[in-house]
Amino acid sequence: MLAVHLENGRVEVRDSPTPSRPERFSLIRLLCGGICNTDLELQRGYYGFRGIPGHEFVGEVVESDTAALTGRRVVGEINLACGGCEYCARGLGRHCSSRTVLGIVQHPGAFAEYLTLPDANLRAVPDDLPTERAVFTEPVAAACEILEQVRIPVGEPVAVLGDGKLGLLIAQVLAANGLRVSQFGRHLSKLRIAEQAGVQTEVLRGALPVRAFEYVVDATGSAAGLQQAVAMTKPRGTLIAKSTVYGAVPVDMAAIIVNEITIVGSRCGLFEPAIELLTSGRVRVDEMISDHFELADAAGAFDRAAQNGVLKVLLRAA
Amino acid sequence: MLAVHLENGRVEVRDSPTPSRPERFSLIRLLCGGICNTDLELQRGYYGFRGIPGHEFVGEVVESDTAALTGRRVVGEINLACGGCEYCARGLGRHCSSRTVLGIVQHPGAFAEYLTLPDANLRAVPDDLPTERAVFTEPVAAACEILEQVRIPVGEPVAVLGDGKLGLLIAQVLAANGLRVSQFGRHLSKLRIAEQAGVQTEVLRGALPVRAFEYVVDATGSAAGLQQAVAMTKPRGTLIAKSTVYGAVPVDMAAIIVNEITIVGSRCGLFEPAIELLTSGRVRVDEMISDHFELADAAGAFDRAAQNGVLKVLLRAA
Repeated sequence: MLAVHLENGRVEVRDSPTPSRPERFSLIRLLCGGICNTDLELQRGYYGFRGIPGHEFVGEVVESDTAALTGRRVVGEINLACGGCEYCARGLGRHCSSRTVLGIVQHPGAFAEYLTLPDANLRAVPDDLPTERAVFTEPVAAACEILEQVRIPVGEPVAVLGDGKLGLLIAQVLAANGLRVSQFGRHLSKLRIAEQAGVQTEVLRGALPVRAFEYVVDATGSAAGLQQAVAMTKPRGTLIAKSTVYGAVPVDMAAIIVNEITIVGSRCGLFEPAIELLTSGRVRVDEMISDHFELADAAGAFDRAAQNGVLKVLLRAA
Repeated sequence: MLAVHLENGRVEVRDSPTPSRPERFSLIRLLCGGICNTDLELQRGYYGFRGIPGHEFVGEVVESDTAALTGRRVVGEINLACGGCEYCARGLGRHCSSRTVLGIVQHPGAFAEYLTLPDANLRAVPDDLPTERAVFTEPVAAACEILEQVRIPVGEPVAVLGDGKLGLLIAQVLAANGLRVSQFGRHLSKLRIAEQAGVQTEVLRGALPVRAFEYVVDATGSAAGLQQAVAMTKPRGTLIAKSTVYGAVPVDMAAIIVNEITIVGSRCGLFEPAIELLTSGRVRVDEMISDHFELADAAGAFDRAAQNGVLKVLLRAA
């Protein structure tokens, strides 16, 4: 089969063996994959990654021990959990300490003609949810995770800092859940996407408001953005840290302590609410698709995804 | 009157005018003051401070508009709030954005023969609480603040990292509130003080436990300690950041996000529970007093407080 390989910063498409399917895993044929910032970071060498990347996908189950899955379009939760530990028992397999992670940690990713995942990780895609929307399930789930972790009263103002892919999804998810979202970013064209979903947006020119929001989401992916988010948070307020910055990030801890700010690290989420939001159209993703590439041209797709102003780049299997 | 002055790193005792008492403020004669790490940091130039430091004190009210206070021994909350803003309305005057802070921000401190504070800030010291214990009210209140902010189930294991003054008080306060406290520090003699209060302690030699506690309190006052505290916290756990480190502190945000850790900045607390814990003897402070100095020898007191292994240094007015 064709598979994308990352190694030493290079993106190559190689002929690779089709993966064998362990018991209680399904073999899945890729229909569509989405390139995420994490994939670009893996390319740059984070986690010392080498291998097949890709964790945003829609595929068709071609072989499975679960009859109901065979032939279905599916999306898949990316954490492969042990099923037996304290976190798995709490339904938090995404924190299982012996987990592997699709296309990130010790499990070959989705940017290949075929991939495998445990049946337990798969969710059938509703017939009325097109593949190119369903491929956003994983990042929309990550946005939904905020509301699993922090109970924000309906109608409450929330600031979202950053207008990249994740920021746009977060703003829409929070607005769809009845919060009064103000999104701050640098790109008018990107912010327009959130505006169409009822988000109030502001293009950053001068200074950001200070001590202004009880709830702030940092989706900037930058150390400077995190620092701005701290400054925007009211004393005793909550800052949700959503976008990973690698390495040691300089943080003004004194401001966090003196103002008694709570910082909530937030990562992967449950797929069910995400599928519901995408199917109902309450989260709109069509305008976020910047480009399509064939799997065989993954190198071009990665280059495009890394360009300024580009949102989601999709990979299509032939 | 005699008053301690900090300026450019120097500690001087000067003859200064006795402060005049505004309406609804009391004039207080100092009985005893405690030197806190913050005072040492002010001496080193944080906040560009110059003036009279001191915010841990017990005094006697010599003049007041509140008859019940006159002649009483008192302790005083350090934040002087406006009384009219959103935070003051919520009972959170300690977050009032126009507050001044006793001995720290724009209000002369307690290391002087006389000081003033609003009557609303003062709490009478019970007759059976000796002055040299009551002087710990402010830091014990800061320790109590953790339980105002985070609801920790009774019997839950909690790690306290650091065995300085604040760490010892935090460990005792948490143990007194029914939590199973493990304190980690470098000084056997200091940890013994917490042990006597029912805290399990461990002298740090090798590596700290990783992903081991649902609740961790960082009281190390160091960037390295904060990083260790992050590593000790279980996924989805809570790290209470209690000791201020100034400047931009390098923080591994990726670990916080991937493990979905919550960080709660925590500062000043309410005095009532602190007075109760000190009066009942459930928090023991006698062993934490390393030395006494006369106010006139404040320079010697500051030198002593900055020495390795020294805990609380008290200043006595003549």
